Amino acid sequence: MSLTFDHVTLGQRVLFGTGAAAANLAAEVARLGAERVMVIASDFETGMARTVAAGIEVALWHHDVVMHVPLETAEKARAAAAGAGVDLLVCVGGGSTTGLAKAVAMTSRLPIIAVPTTYAGSEATNVWGLTEAARKTTGVDDAVLPVTVIYDAALTLSLPVALSVASGLNGMAHCIDSMWAPRADPINAALGAEGIRALAAGLPLITADPAGTAGREQALYGAYLSAVAFASAGSGLHHKICHVLGGTFNLPHAQTHATVLPYALAFNAPHAPEAQARIAAAFGTTDALTGLQDLRKRLDAPQALADYGFTADGIAEAAAIILPAVPVSNPRPATTENLTRLLQAALTGEDPALLLDL
Amino acid sequence: MSLTFDHVTLGQRVLFGTGAAAANLAAEVARLGAERVMVIASDFETGMARTVAAGIEVALWHHDVVMHVPLETAEKARAAAAGAGVDLLVCVGGGSTTGLAKAVAMTSRLPIIAVPTTYAGSEATNVWGLTEAARKTTGVDDAVLPVTVIYDAALTLSLPVALSVASGLNGMAHCIDSMWAPRADPINAALGAEGIRALAAGLPLITADPAGTAGREQALYGAYLSAVAFASAGSGLHHKICHVLGGTFNLPHAQTHATVLPYALAFNAPHAPEAQARIAAAFGTTDALTGLQDLRKRLDAPQALADYGFTADGIAEAAAIILPAVPVSNPRPATTENLTRLLQAALTGEDPALLLDL
Repeated sequence: MSLTFDHVTLGQRVLFGTGAAAANLAAEVARLGAERVMVIASDFETGMARTVAAGIEVALWHHDVVMHVPLETAEKARAAAAGAGVDLLVCVGGGSTTGLAKAVAMTSRLPIIAVPTTYAGSEATNVWGLTEAARKTTGVDDAVLPVTVIYDAALTLSLPVALSVASGLNGMAHCIDSMWAPRADPINAALGAEGIRALAAGLPLITADPAGTAGREQALYGAYLSAVAFASAGSGLHHKICHVLGGTFNLPHAQTHATVLPYALAFNAPHAPEAQARIAAAFGTTDALTGLQDLRKRLDAPQALADYGFTADGIAEAAAIILPAVPVSNPRPATTENLTRLLQAALTGEDPALLLDL
Repeated sequence: MSLTFDHVTLGQRVLFGTGAAAANLAAEVARLGAERVMVIASDFETGMARTVAAGIEVALWHHDVVMHVPLETAEKARAAAAGAGVDLLVCVGGGSTTGLAKAVAMTSRLPIIAVPTTYAGSEATNVWGLTEAARKTTGVDDAVLPVTVIYDAALTLSLPVALSVASGLNGMAHCIDSMWAPRADPINAALGAEGIRALAAGLPLITADPAGTAGREQALYGAYLSAVAFASAGSGLHHKICHVLGGTFNLPHAQTHATVLPYALAFNAPHAPEAQARIAAAFGTTDALTGLQDLRKRLDAPQALADYGFTADGIAEAAAIILPAVPVSNPRPATTENLTRLLQAALTGEDPALLLDL
């Protein structure tokens, strides 16, 4: 088969070092020659942000961060930035905080230095999101891509173990889905495979030693790669399923991803031998599903959608909404029947290997 | 060991498709809104360049391309671009052609679309080179990084098999050296490993079917990744050795790389277990050196430096010049003794495995 792809690599500087965020931030602010820095951090993240910003002069602190970036929150931050004559945005926090910095960069074209404290991954993409009247709009603009990302695993130590695992498996889902998403290409696959390797190494270390940084480093690095691969490859089967389960059935985000992933993998793997081999190699196993399930067992990962509020009544509706959303490029053609079977298995936590021969 | 690295990802668009260069170029010129395109191609490459440029309007053709980009050649091209009011540079050819486009971009800040026809890899880096009075100067400037690279394996069909193999093994050397070069990091290692995989798959296909494009595609893709990984990681032990053999002893570039590589790998591998494992996995073997040597055997690759003009007389001088150039971060500390042993082995084509226990 001929090798054909279009791949856009987003230019970005990544500074990765545990305990080094403050020093790296000071060096980057100096390198960029910024003189009027706005630091965005939610109230909850302020303590951490003050430590990170200890070595720089801050012209403006902004703490009004709201989930999903409501437009009025964005407008307030934009006005504050303009009022203070800001020339650089620094965000310290999770996805909502990064999202707010992006909303300001969208209109002001100011550069962003992102200091993520979770595995959200927004810092590695050029995607922005805004919510108006309960409706979320997203778009792509290179101006919202942080010029520099500063990763410091010490900042993730306060992420509870269960959330670290669920969020890390969400990253794992990004990596695996990148293998067959609409814009899948070998570069995304290589980065996704490296993300799988790092997450598979890191997550068990976090559960074994929650106060240590070795596992947190690998997981944070893996989460970064998962965002890079996913942003480039787009949403595949797995994400389309989870989007419907989250959006229409209000199932919790990370747990839904963690539960559905082995079913999506078992569904596609026999029809995507190259992806199967890459995923297996990243897990260090001969079989991709075995690698994923061994890891999930060690992590005591979520097992059944029934545990998160999904019921058999929802399956027909879910399958009907998912079916038209499955990318035409998905390696196994989706049908009402096979999606129904997948959802039934995920509902009760049946062995996903049963889907391999569907 | 703590995970610490600084990684700069260069932003670039890569369009990869066999037989698609002309269509991809026309689409990119339109996307960039360029109206005065300068196409740079050597006399030798002109036929190919005319085919590639068939779908665009060319304001200026420039054929005065000279190896190593002499300053006067660069100045002529710069003057021609300015005189014609050019707003986009397109280069179709090998490393010297891309290098000339970079020399023009350096001073004019004009964007470049690169259409490489060899495995030189310059198209994926922000490094420029100029030669003045027989002295080569190189530097780094993001303005010389092509905004878009268009890869078309059909354009590489005229590369003779022996040159494809030697040049492909040079790319392989970039990938392997990236594992322990001064700015080595896991991202470079992952991209380097993917490059090894692609080159190991592609090169034997080229020797088996020189007129086919399947092997040429994999090799071209692998060569691209080798350039990305190498530009980011910098020169490691292998390149320092080859630089001296080429510069001081005038040995031929690609063949020297192809010959020295297994010795550099055997020298470092036992001291770099993670790199060893990544390289082995990329070859699909349990041992890195075995993977490389099996491939070299299949390709009938160069075996001994003696075949390319090196003699035992040169070993002491070469070792003396190489020693201070070896990066301090090299996994095995270099000494006069172990470098001498390495050069002796490479001179006569001894089994590189003998270096594993040095």
